[in-house]
Amino acid sequence: MNVALLGGTGDFGEALALRWARDTDHTVVVGSRDATRASEHAADYESTLAAHGTSGDIVGCANPEAARRGDVVVCAVPSYHLTDTVDAVSAGLDADTVLVSPAVGMKHDEAGAHYNRPAAGSVTALAARAAPENVPVVGAFHSLPAGPLADLGTDIDAETPVVGDDAAAVERVADLANAVDGLRARRAGGLANAAEVEALAPLLINVGTHEPDLHDVWLSFG
Amino acid sequence: MNVALLGGTGDFGEALALRWARDTDHTVVVGSRDATRASEHAADYESTLAAHGTSGDIVGCANPEAARRGDVVVCAVPSYHLTDTVDAVSAGLDADTVLVSPAVGMKHDEAGAHYNRPAAGSVTALAARAAPENVPVVGAFHSLPAGPLADLGTDIDAETPVVGDDAAAVERVADLANAVDGLRARRAGGLANAAEVEALAPLLINVGTHEPDLHDVWLSFG
Repeated sequence: MNVALLGGTGDFGEALALRWARDTDHTVVVGSRDATRASEHAADYESTLAAHGTSGDIVGCANPEAARRGDVVVCAVPSYHLTDTVDAVSAGLDADTVLVSPAVGMKHDEAGAHYNRPAAGSVTALAARAAPENVPVVGAFHSLPAGPLADLGTDIDAETPVVGDDAAAVERVADLANAVDGLRARRAGGLANAAEVEALAPLLINVGTHEPDLHDVWLSFG
Repeated sequence: MNVALLGGTGDFGEALALRWARDTDHTVVVGSRDATRASEHAADYESTLAAHGTSGDIVGCANPEAARRGDVVVCAVPSYHLTDTVDAVSAGLDADTVLVSPAVGMKHDEAGAHYNRPAAGSVTALAARAAPENVPVVGAFHSLPAGPLADLGTDIDAETPVVGDDAAAVERVADLANAVDGLRARRAGGLANAAEVEALAPLLINVGTHEPDLHDVWLSFG
């Protein structure tokens, strides 16, 4: 399977690319607005894997080509670039592609981080609106801190809620989450339940700010 | 110390009353709109403790008297009764009392449970508005499922975020959370951060609905 990461040259894209390349047999397709930059990052990520004594299959290309190649396409871009990014790649998405939205809109002030809920109901709902109608959209990976996720020396022991209206698409993304060592998918229902999942991201930031012993904040249920 | 539970005859009030009575030396003051009902429930809770081979100090009285006696006063009432309840007891609250709000406003539909954010910003903020100005207000215990919490045979291994603007009040409530066997407080900043904490409650309900192996959903960070 090909897993594409739109905005795969950013911190969060890098983190997911490294984990999937190391822990699965999938081809990771790093997308960027600039194809050269994508290829350079793909090569860098393979070097990072080699430095950790492992390897993986990572290629780079422009976002539209990454979306065309991806069986799962993760929009690893900030929420304010989400609609533009999906628009730019929509010709490469179809009913066999699962589009994944991990983005969260946040406001930061003196008190901390706050969930900035879009009028659409959630950022995941925005992604669903932007995508062609027949493309299943799944929300996942919102609650994962990019820094330790990108550090392959960090062992994960965490869960990530997954939401979506298409059961097969949810299972494909849940499998991809469960394939990362130490990560477990937790289904939280349909897209209408995405806001509460996205609101985890600012909560975890606030807990990390106020609990000094929690250097990185991971979540688990159960 | 006296810990008062307004609406302490409800499921969630019962759960907290039993845990604090068993696990601490505090006097638990069960409040209700009806003093007789409060006393009957207090006696029932002591019987429950005895049936589990333990004991505790639990008394019952009307909500205003419970608030007057409480060093910590927990509003264990549904969010739609919060303002009325605080109004009814406000003469018994002062700067030495900590008022705790564990309530969450939720809507339920076919998709699941959804956070119903009040215009005030959060239910905890509503409590702060309703309370006399000098009374410190803390949000806590939103993410705890009443059923297993009330079952003393259930071992807890969970965390609960705590928010508040008064550092001493937050510490008093955090101590009270940490005093429950298996429960750990996690500070999440000021009252302005309460919405993301309250949104955990519907998320945990949704995860519990869609993950059959998670009979009761508890949260932990770290």
